Amino acid sequence: MVSTKPPSGMRDYLPDAVVKRRYVLGKVESVFQRYGFLPLETPTMEHLTTLLGKYGDEGDQLLYRVLHRGERLSRVLTQDKVEMADLAELGLRYDLTVPLARVVAQYGHLLPRFFKRYQIQPVWRADRPAKGRFREFYQCDVDITGTTSLLAEAEVVNAISEVLVDLGFRNFSIALNHRAVLRSMIEVTGIGQALEETALVAIDKLDKIGPAGVQDELTARGIAPAAAQRLLELTTVAQDKENLQTLHALREMIPLPQAQQALTDLETLCTLTSAAPAGVRLRIAPALARGLSYYTGPIFEVVSEDFSGSLGGGGRYDHLVGMFSNKQVPAVGFSLGLERILLLMEEQQMFPDLRMAAQVMVCPLPDTPLAPVVGLVTRLRQAGLTVELYPEPARLGRQLANADDLQIPYALIVGPDEVAQQRYTLKHLATGTQQQLSEAELLATLR
Amino acid sequence: MVSTKPPSGMRDYLPDAVVKRRYVLGKVESVFQRYGFLPLETPTMEHLTTLLGKYGDEGDQLLYRVLHRGERLSRVLTQDKVEMADLAELGLRYDLTVPLARVVAQYGHLLPRFFKRYQIQPVWRADRPAKGRFREFYQCDVDITGTTSLLAEAEVVNAISEVLVDLGFRNFSIALNHRAVLRSMIEVTGIGQALEETALVAIDKLDKIGPAGVQDELTARGIAPAAAQRLLELTTVAQDKENLQTLHALREMIPLPQAQQALTDLETLCTLTSAAPAGVRLRIAPALARGLSYYTGPIFEVVSEDFSGSLGGGGRYDHLVGMFSNKQVPAVGFSLGLERILLLMEEQQMFPDLRMAAQVMVCPLPDTPLAPVVGLVTRLRQAGLTVELYPEPARLGRQLANADDLQIPYALIVGPDEVAQQRYTLKHLATGTQQQLSEAELLATLR
Repeated sequence: MVSTKPPSGMRDYLPDAVVKRRYVLGKVESVFQRYGFLPLETPTMEHLTTLLGKYGDEGDQLLYRVLHRGERLSRVLTQDKVEMADLAELGLRYDLTVPLARVVAQYGHLLPRFFKRYQIQPVWRADRPAKGRFREFYQCDVDITGTTSLLAEAEVVNAISEVLVDLGFRNFSIALNHRAVLRSMIEVTGIGQALEETALVAIDKLDKIGPAGVQDELTARGIAPAAAQRLLELTTVAQDKENLQTLHALREMIPLPQAQQALTDLETLCTLTSAAPAGVRLRIAPALARGLSYYTGPIFEVVSEDFSGSLGGGGRYDHLVGMFSNKQVPAVGFSLGLERILLLMEEQQMFPDLRMAAQVMVCPLPDTPLAPVVGLVTRLRQAGLTVELYPEPARLGRQLANADDLQIPYALIVGPDEVAQQRYTLKHLATGTQQQLSEAELLATLR
Repeated sequence: MVSTKPPSGMRDYLPDAVVKRRYVLGKVESVFQRYGFLPLETPTMEHLTTLLGKYGDEGDQLLYRVLHRGERLSRVLTQDKVEMADLAELGLRYDLTVPLARVVAQYGHLLPRFFKRYQIQPVWRADRPAKGRFREFYQCDVDITGTTSLLAEAEVVNAISEVLVDLGFRNFSIALNHRAVLRSMIEVTGIGQALEETALVAIDKLDKIGPAGVQDELTARGIAPAAAQRLLELTTVAQDKENLQTLHALREMIPLPQAQQALTDLETLCTLTSAAPAGVRLRIAPALARGLSYYTGPIFEVVSEDFSGSLGGGGRYDHLVGMFSNKQVPAVGFSLGLERILLLMEEQQMFPDLRMAAQVMVCPLPDTPLAPVVGLVTRLRQAGLTVELYPEPARLGRQLANADDLQIPYALIVGPDEVAQQRYTLKHLATGTQQQLSEAELLATLR
């Protein structure tokens, strides 16, 4: 007998789980739409040429590749030496940002000049499964292409803040940093560009392993102890201070012009959102680095004391579209992870009652002519009611027990007399009270 | 520069296309829910052991397989001879019926005794792309497991009929046949079980190639001319007659007991739906065969003179769950193809106006303090309005032209004075009329 479990790291969603997911997605989508974002969907598969090299080496390794088929595969398999690159040219979507960049490059002339798009689709990563980490998971992305204006950053951080508040999250902030500030910190500490990426990976762990841990990790990664200490000072400056104080401190410590401009931009963003949902959420976080290599400007991440890890993140990426086109198109976006949100909402019991039981189960008694019963059920459904019909001949007690199991509040008992007289017995299962009703009375009662 | 087109046979859905798809899916889902079906979602990937052998040889060839990764792949590639079977153990979902059967086998104890599920998800088939035929496409399925009652057949054909009528389809019927009738026809014509499948493939083409074409094809497939002619007579019996007359004629011509029972079942199904949506749609079609090998009882297919090919089909499959479990669980279902439906609705202009433009674009004049503007935009959105904010400093004319391009009906013009006085200029773009409004008046006007 073959296994009936889903593949490792992937899940079946039974009805209760689907309903919870849709509740969250409905809220997310409603906010995105009120913010003027338009929906986009892209194929599950992308050319590997589109995907490779966009997510760093680790990303390339986590890509799912789709095997060639038919003659093409047969030809490859007769080669003396078979290489991975010969076996696949398509891969599964790894995020929603690279497909957006491809779409903007392909259809730019058909899209609004400022393209505000949202996209809610699954992505696949062959990562090691863990709590809250799956191989198939949904991302909910908003992005704005076509402008370098910081109002675009404001729109995406406000939209994300509003989504989380709408879902019931209270204790979260949005960590904010800027790639140019990070680059300048590497420069002023004398670490040198060659070690920039490895240094930032270590710094990004500050929340998890603390300053001493980061100091150790920096030196382990080949950074001179003095430079490591200086970098650590920069990234922990004015911690727990107001944003403007942190920005002021950084301004003094990093006198490079590109850092000054970036810090001004971060201050502007804080001001722009001061009367909006993200205003109270933004927190300048000089240690925030974000892994993906395509970011070029401000970067964000949702953090909270209620959970480790992040509910999502984003940033500005002004050069990604240009990797698919002769034209550079600036862009900024934010991606929420659905699975982590669902996990937290489950743990913290943040879901309302989402039962989706039918309103009434129609229970035919033995020897009832069924065609008129199906006709009655049809009319009730067409009037907007959710109606279940017990499908088999069975004792009434068994039918009522089934309705109860399904949490259906009413049973409509229909026997030969009821069909002849067109009056039906409506039973409220919790109380046992019964009424004899015409079809019109029935509709009035159940609606 | 890499290609920015989606992979062959797959599509990007720009916002207008997404909105049309969601309109259709919304209607489909609403009917399914009123019929008491519950939503299920399964992973994009399945174990190949789950998929192989369920769709016939052609199906196996059209499966997308997912390449192994990392060390496991490296080990395979060092083998002297690399076989396809060594390279993959996962494949992409090919339909929604086999995943349902796996789910019922895996979670049967958690599911209702009569599990009415709907599922709307993409499937993948490496078929040759053609008009209306894609490699990634959505299916909308309803199935009922756990009962052999013909009321289950009635529920699925009624639900599908109601969906199509709700979408605006008028000229369609649901062709109806029964696997036991087909098997009996093969038996009484003396064709023999070995040639059953090939004979049915030929018969299934009756609508496309006509009786003479089928006669030729049957003999080309090795069926004796006399048997071929007899089979053709059976499958074209009482054409264009009332269902009961067709059933009566078949009853006389196929005296085998299993056929008599099956014909009685088809008559019962016609009666059961006589006061319901499928009643006027069902049409006994003795030539309907349906390719998939897992059907065991009644089979259905949506057909119409308005289009060639089918919008969907289904049938009873009482042995599929048993392929994944020690327990046989009877089941019946129907699958609608979304792409064909969309194509026809587009061709026949069946969509209402689905514009999803924002209700108002907020246009800041030069030198306007932007934080209060973002605050205003936030409050309008929180009040339920869909609000666009022009993101860059620009002349008003340019902003208004952009609002017009996006089909946004109103512009809200906000300059330094408006911010100071908290009264804003609302301009109706089609007529050019302007009003000065407070925030409360603005909300009252736009809502």
